[in-house]
Amino acid sequence: MNEVHKKMRGRPRKEAGDREADRRALIAAALAILNEGGVTALTARGVAERAGTAVGSVYTQFDSLELLRLEANAVTMRQLRDTLAGALAACPSRETEARLLCLADAYLAFAGEHHAAWAAIFERRTVAAPDTVQADIAALFGILEGVLRDGGRLAEAAIPVMARALWSSVHGMTYLADLGSLGPLGVGDVRPMIDALVRAAVRGFSAD
Amino acid sequence: MNEVHKKMRGRPRKEAGDREADRRALIAAALAILNEGGVTALTARGVAERAGTAVGSVYTQFDSLELLRLEANAVTMRQLRDTLAGALAACPSRETEARLLCLADAYLAFAGEHHAAWAAIFERRTVAAPDTVQADIAALFGILEGVLRDGGRLAEAAIPVMARALWSSVHGMTYLADLGSLGPLGVGDVRPMIDALVRAAVRGFSAD
Repeated sequence: MNEVHKKMRGRPRKEAGDREADRRALIAAALAILNEGGVTALTARGVAERAGTAVGSVYTQFDSLELLRLEANAVTMRQLRDTLAGALAACPSRETEARLLCLADAYLAFAGEHHAAWAAIFERRTVAAPDTVQADIAALFGILEGVLRDGGRLAEAAIPVMARALWSSVHGMTYLADLGSLGPLGVGDVRPMIDALVRAAVRGFSAD
Repeated sequence: MNEVHKKMRGRPRKEAGDREADRRALIAAALAILNEGGVTALTARGVAERAGTAVGSVYTQFDSLELLRLEANAVTMRQLRDTLAGALAACPSRETEARLLCLADAYLAFAGEHHAAWAAIFERRTVAAPDTVQADIAALFGILEGVLRDGGRLAEAAIPVMARALWSSVHGMTYLADLGSLGPLGVGDVRPMIDALVRAAVRGFSAD
């Protein structure tokens, strides 16, 4: 873009680098709002105010508020991935069962510490997640698949299925306990539940 | 209440039987709306119109719209309980693994057939569930606990924990697949995931 072009448009258009910076600022603002108040607190006006831009810039950068939310969720997922990778590196055992429980503990702690942003990941969406977000989801499962592969007890084809089954299980226990949907069992009972299920499942791998 | 009392109040108060009938009509209306459009479709005005009453009657009968929603959810949970009990009775095998998979299949089918009402059960709530709703939740887990008890592989104290762990796992897989949160795996992959996890876990019971 040259000076003449800028003048023709009436006001200077932003350079690509500026647009990317604006985009990142909007995502960071959306993430901060999600962390504080969850999905119900997320509005285009609130994001714009927090990012110090006009409301219109939200819709210039994102096709919808929902897509901005999905991008903010992707940041949370990358934080979760880093947390899980760190927990796995710090896990004192090389046994599959212990490594899965190290991951589960890190997941539980993350859900507690980033509660509103974590819950926001699981809100319903009406549009497909962008490819980059799909890649972030795949990277999360990749950590769990690596542990199962290292364990050497499952056929390669069974690994993605079991990784998602275990992931969903730990998520299901965490989420339902958080909702208060497990009857007399609550958040404090999640760790023993995860422990019981993971230990039984891993023993079951061995029995193949 | 006597005739003099009624006159003092300006208009006749409803008898207890009528109030109970109104209450049931409002719950039925709320459930129909949840089945059609989920939680976002539920409004006091919509419920009242559907039940053929004034909006005020919603708040005469229930402290909040949310409490009405919890009562409607309880109806869905009782339908789910009947579905699961029926599936278990019809299950051709007496093996623990097969019986758990009969229950999981029935759960998956119910979630598909009553999708919006099923998803409404897992919406966040801001008030405690009434005792009657807690009892409905306990009855659901009771079915699963019975299967584990019949299997004779788990200590009595371990049964409620494992029942909720398996329940949450199947729920987590169903819910995340439904959300599109399992990467390349989708709703059609839930059954193989449940199968893999339940088989491994039950083999793990046996290895105790």
